[in-house]
Amino acid sequence: MRIAVYPGTFDPVTNGHIHIAERACKLFDKVIIAVAVENYKEDLFSLEERMTMIKESLKHLDNIEVESYKDLSADFATKKNAEALIRGLRAVSDFEYEMQMAAMNRHLNSNLETVFLMACGKYSFLSSSIIKQVALIGGSVQGLVPPLVEEKLKKKYLETI
Amino acid sequence: MRIAVYPGTFDPVTNGHIHIAERACKLFDKVIIAVAVENYKEDLFSLEERMTMIKESLKHLDNIEVESYKDLSADFATKKNAEALIRGLRAVSDFEYEMQMAAMNRHLNSNLETVFLMACGKYSFLSSSIIKQVALIGGSVQGLVPPLVEEKLKKKYLETI
Amino acid sequence: MRIAVYPGTFDPVTNGHIHIAERACKLFDKVIIAVAVENYKEDLFSLEERMTMIKESLKHLDNIEVESYKDLSADFATKKNAEALIRGLRAVSDFEYEMQMAAMNRHLNSNLETVFLMACGKYSFLSSSIIKQVALIGGSVQGLVPPLVEEKLKKKYLETI
Amino acid sequence: MRIAVYPGTFDPVTNGHIHIAERACKLFDKVIIAVAVENYKEDLFSLEERMTMIKESLKHLDNIEVESYKDLSADFATKKNAEALIRGLRAVSDFEYEMQMAAMNRHLNSNLETVFLMACGKYSFLSSSIIKQVALIGGSVQGLVPPLVEEKLKKKYLETI
Amino acid sequence: MRIAVYPGTFDPVTNGHIHIAERACKLFDKVIIAVAVENYKEDLFSLEERMTMIKESLKHLDNIEVESYKDLSADFATKKNAEALIRGLRAVSDFEYEMQMAAMNRHLNSNLETVFLMACGKYSFLSSSIIKQVALIGGSVQGLVPPLVEEKLKKKYLETI
Amino acid sequence: MRIAVYPGTFDPVTNGHIHIAERACKLFDKVIIAVAVENYKEDLFSLEERMTMIKESLKHLDNIEVESYKDLSADFATKKNAEALIRGLRAVSDFEYEMQMAAMNRHLNSNLETVFLMACGKYSFLSSSIIKQVALIGGSVQGLVPPLVEEKLKKKYLETI
Repeated sequence: MRIAVYPGTFDPVTNGHIHIAERACKLFDKVIIAVAVENYKEDLFSLEERMTMIKESLKHLDNIEVESYKDLSADFATKKNAEALIRGLRAVSDFEYEMQMAAMNRHLNSNLETVFLMACGKYSFLSSSIIKQVALIGGSVQGLVPPLVEEKLKKKYLETI
Repeated sequence: MRIAVYPGTFDPVTNGHIHIAERACKLFDKVIIAVAVENYKEDLFSLEERMTMIKESLKHLDNIEVESYKDLSADFATKKNAEALIRGLRAVSDFEYEMQMAAMNRHLNSNLETVFLMACGKYSFLSSSIIKQVALIGGSVQGLVPPLVEEKLKKKYLETI
Repeated sequence: MRIAVYPGTFDPVTNGHIHIAERACKLFDKVIIAVAVENYKEDLFSLEERMTMIKESLKHLDNIEVESYKDLSADFATKKNAEALIRGLRAVSDFEYEMQMAAMNRHLNSNLETVFLMACGKYSFLSSSIIKQVALIGGSVQGLVPPLVEEKLKKKYLETI
Repeated sequence: MRIAVYPGTFDPVTNGHIHIAERACKLFDKVIIAVAVENYKEDLFSLEERMTMIKESLKHLDNIEVESYKDLSADFATKKNAEALIRGLRAVSDFEYEMQMAAMNRHLNSNLETVFLMACGKYSFLSSSIIKQVALIGGSVQGLVPPLVEEKLKKKYLETI
Repeated sequence: MRIAVYPGTFDPVTNGHIHIAERACKLFDKVIIAVAVENYKEDLFSLEERMTMIKESLKHLDNIEVESYKDLSADFATKKNAEALIRGLRAVSDFEYEMQMAAMNRHLNSNLETVFLMACGKYSFLSSSIIKQVALIGGSVQGLVPPLVEEKLKKKYLETI
Repeated sequence: MRIAVYPGTFDPVTNGHIHIAERACKLFDKVIIAVAVENYKEDLFSLEERMTMIKESLKHLDNIEVESYKDLSADFATKKNAEALIRGLRAVSDFEYEMQMAAMNRHLNSNLETVFLMACGKYSFLSSSIIKQVALIGGSVQGLVPPLVEEKLKKKYLETI
């Protein structure tokens, strides 16, 4: 059985993440969404909120699991017997950071492969941070995040005004 | 009448911003400089200071107005009946961020166009943040910002030593 | 009256070009599509064919004209009393070439502005050359070019097999 | 059984290609190396030579097949019931071309995924064209291509002087 | 005597920095490693620790000196009668920032040249910040930093758990 | 004595090349301009013409020599006992190609260093090919190339019309 880990903060999950996850599920027997535990100051949602939103958004996929992790994503993947890390690529700036991380992960575990999937055109400008930036000053993010996330972002916005 | 909005923090305005504003004034009947209200921790000058400096620096242009705004630049532009947002492009890293913002702004208001003007060679390395970085440790920024800004930066520098 | 020139080879026109032209027509009183005369070896369609296809594809726009030109696009724009050249931007590689051309055109005529519009997400991967590459080995380009262009590409393909 | 197609010209195969192929073989049950038939003017080796070299270089891999193809790599992959195309990424310029091709291939066959693997550091500067450029003016490519390829390049070089 | 200054934070020094320093020592009669005094919040090691580690790591080089500096690296270089600043380049994102800094330094002192050396392949993904990111959650950085640095990072890690 | 080689086609030499050469002359005891012999189809000027123009343009520099070379620039530099190759960097696309070449040259001769100097802002858009592209359709290149080159380009232009 081929297992892949798709790590991230998912603060919050976007339709771009979901599209990558759906495509990863066709390539591997099992895909584990690995939600980073650490709650930096810039995080908007708690780990629990982030996991609830992503589980709800991916419940149409049979071969997916959502777990939290701390420490190194390479170590988490090794523990899970994963063969690959999944990463989405949108832009050149992504590319360079991801190339750096992939090289470091190969240094840490040379048997773990990083597999990159390109974001499709309509999601190529989407990121969790631009979603937060827009939603928290009252802009619409309809069609860019799942309905549950849209709703939760509206609540956060109403709390801040 | 065709109106364009040129949004930014302008903390402080540089000769690069002024050059973009001058060129925008030839392309549109009115250009509104939109100075973002929000005063993040990393801002050096207050909104009032930033607006005073930019008004002074652009007073040779007839068809320009300087206003402050909060919230989304796309919403501000819509309220002002603007047809376009103006953005300067200097480097690849600008390009990717701006492409992301332009796509988001098109999502928010599909009638609002983002118009990009390239920085000319001699200003292609200029940014408000590099100006602050240099001026606040005593380096000369003569010729890179208007004289009023140069003077205000010197005062800030003298306050910090 | 503000006039802009949108120069190119348009060999053939794609839906990406059409989207840029439609948006330019909202920003300027008149937009002149300037089709480069010169027929390099790598051109697939003759000037006449290229002009027929682009005229047909843009006939829904009132304030557009299609003309051919040779020599420098900056000189052509000057003769037409245009204030601006229009260029679409898709990717970083576009960006650098266009920055170089915009700087050169400013050198040639400092009153002529180059205005950049970003390709929208779904057309960000489209170019005339990838269209030719795919169509000429029998791939479908439906939805990526206007129907007339699709038809003409099919004929070219059938001639080559 | 999950099948991937790794398409290319392989003119000639480099150690960079071999490293990507080895890693792809761990991720998929079968990997088909698809050598493009068409012999453009800039090709150095014939299809037969290119296939011989790549077969020899990959004979240590059990789940690999080498085939030639013409037309579209997406069509070839579909005929072979492949789920994915494999592409190596080295640099930003690769990234943009590959993003364009991946988008086009998704247009042609939305069930076919393009999977990107990053070149490792020591092969990040390697390409078939730089190998040819150096070898054909007598430079050493030892350690950059398999021994058989090195030998064949030397013969080509001796033929040209 | 030709003198070059190689400025940085070196928090901590990596094998990538050492490789650049060794190569700079062949090109100049004297190379001064200039360790930035300022201790931003994100710094892990004190100035003293950073200087100790870099001195130890470069003691095999005869024509090198390690000094601390504050203020502008261009001013420090001028005081030291240096003809050049040395900078390493790894990736496109480096390139743009460094181009900006080089232009600013030329503005500040037109006689001071910035000389760029490319990181070699195996160090092209290395940065002080990725080293800290990995080491502080327990990942191995063996072979990426000098042994003394590896040891000091382990101590910092043990202090945090 | 430290010697550097600045290799290129110089077809024709531009003010950008001259600026790089002048700066290299301050960093090294001797700089050898190495003009590539090979006359590809896309070359406009003969080797003799290219060497005449560059010699004339650099005669104000004492420690410079102009020579022709064929084969590998790394081999030529080795024969000349040079410690470094000089390369100018203008844009991201330059950067990636140059990074590839520098890595290959290090493979060929690990004692030969490649030293990069950034083009200054006003020359950052200049290349021999854009100069030819503009001059050969009658555009002015005044201020972008030395007067002798401008004159020779005008003659070439008059021959073609």
